[in-house]
Amino acid sequence: MRLGVVGLGKMGYNLMLNMMEKGHDVIAYDISQASMEAAKKEGVRTVRSLEELCAGLGDGKTVWVMVPAGEAVEAVIDGLKRCMGQGDTIIDGGNSHYKDSIRRHDELLKRGIGFIDVGTSGGVEGARSGACMMIGGEEEEFKRFEALFGDLCVKGGCAYLGRSGSGHFAKMVHNGIEYGMLQAVGEGFEIIQRSDFAIDNEKLAAVWSNGSVIRGWLMELCHRAFQNSPQLEGVKGKIASSGEGLWAVQEALELGVPASVITQSLLARYASNDNDSFSAKVVSSLRREFGGHDVSK
Amino acid sequence: MRLGVVGLGKMGYNLMLNMMEKGHDVIAYDISQASMEAAKKEGVRTVRSLEELCAGLGDGKTVWVMVPAGEAVEAVIDGLKRCMGQGDTIIDGGNSHYKDSIRRHDELLKRGIGFIDVGTSGGVEGARSGACMMIGGEEEEFKRFEALFGDLCVKGGCAYLGRSGSGHFAKMVHNGIEYGMLQAVGEGFEIIQRSDFAIDNEKLAAVWSNGSVIRGWLMELCHRAFQNSPQLEGVKGKIASSGEGLWAVQEALELGVPASVITQSLLARYASNDNDSFSAKVVSSLRREFGGHDVSK
Repeated sequence: MRLGVVGLGKMGYNLMLNMMEKGHDVIAYDISQASMEAAKKEGVRTVRSLEELCAGLGDGKTVWVMVPAGEAVEAVIDGLKRCMGQGDTIIDGGNSHYKDSIRRHDELLKRGIGFIDVGTSGGVEGARSGACMMIGGEEEEFKRFEALFGDLCVKGGCAYLGRSGSGHFAKMVHNGIEYGMLQAVGEGFEIIQRSDFAIDNEKLAAVWSNGSVIRGWLMELCHRAFQNSPQLEGVKGKIASSGEGLWAVQEALELGVPASVITQSLLARYASNDNDSFSAKVVSSLRREFGGHDVSK
Repeated sequence: MRLGVVGLGKMGYNLMLNMMEKGHDVIAYDISQASMEAAKKEGVRTVRSLEELCAGLGDGKTVWVMVPAGEAVEAVIDGLKRCMGQGDTIIDGGNSHYKDSIRRHDELLKRGIGFIDVGTSGGVEGARSGACMMIGGEEEEFKRFEALFGDLCVKGGCAYLGRSGSGHFAKMVHNGIEYGMLQAVGEGFEIIQRSDFAIDNEKLAAVWSNGSVIRGWLMELCHRAFQNSPQLEGVKGKIASSGEGLWAVQEALELGVPASVITQSLLARYASNDNDSFSAKVVSSLRREFGGHDVSK
């Protein structure tokens, strides 16, 4: 099918290549000129504005939006609203907050524009050669694009989960689980690392990837990371977080779910970014006050 | 090869079947008469005591011990010591504490008996048709049995990790990671469950098993569990723990590793067993004292 792709970051760019490989007719747009040049080299038709994108798509427009959550999505949808209308569809495949997606869905519906929220997992590799997609919106809308989703996902990796917001809600929870799993793996290898045993990280990640209870893609990636760098030399121990982990914790708190592991995994990321934290300074200061303990600077 | 198997519980029994399928000549012993009868029906030669086991094995005895950690392992090794000697080997494939394994290794070495510690993962299915084994002990001892280990594991699922204790140490850490991963998955599905969305658990576990970042055996098992029981009807929300999680946390504390997620996952298990805990009663009582809050009984 013919469709527009807005956002040629790591995920969007690879999803675009995936679409093209499956025979879809893609028109791409990104604010970065470099990404547009790269896309052009792949033989993709690019445009210089959202208006031009709309013009190129003709009737029955479909636009796949793959830009950072928040303001960027808002701006793109605002732009698309001006040149899309009755019978057209916007698919947000990024990591938007599900409440934003529900609001956008409802607003767009009033203009006759369909809106599908797609939580996309599987990383850059998945985007390129077979992703996992959690999909929310009207079921008829989903059905219209079921073949497209099927093309982009691995077998069994595409599911319609229900009303608008379901896709991004499920993706938010997925990322919460991911935070917890990642942190558990990290802690495990730190115990190995600090022990007196001379266990080889790469060998361990390899054996854990084959036949163990904890086998899975994350352990395979762990093996790959240790292959590249046996002690992770040159890797900074600061962990960024792009929002979904925080949202998952906020949601858990509001729902009264004692999601202690997911919460701790988020706190561990915050702590990793702050190795001279103010809270640690407060604790050190109090230890000095009551116990005369030395506070090294 | 000819070898003895002591302990025909869920893991030992299936490992025994696995050994036989690979052409090994197994003599089995268990304190449970029922397990022995079952083994006999599979065509396994059984014996009525450890002495009889030793007598049946002839020269160059190898005994695979697969019994619960602690006293049971201690008792079996004490018994085997009396009828094994120079050139014989004991393999402990259970979940012993690595410090016990090092002590047993050193004691047995004085008698010329080899001792290999094997952390076995992959559950009952793995034991039956391809496990994951983390192996510690003398490298020459490992090499003598490398073919046997290879027979019992999936491809790539067997690794010699170093000196005595390395196998059980790695298994302890593996189980710590497993606790953390399991708890993250549990919390994620509870957020899904308590939300306003009507997301189907089985469908979600299925899509997460295909192409997502969190795909792996645990998610596949989750899918299977929801297939059997979409809301986990009839499953009690109390989580047992058999020791390795506690040991992993103790080890992390001693090594100074801030393993907050693994620790929280253990605490979550404790909390699950105590839905009218004394600590909650204390908190409720204090809330009544300072705020006049109602304390329902």
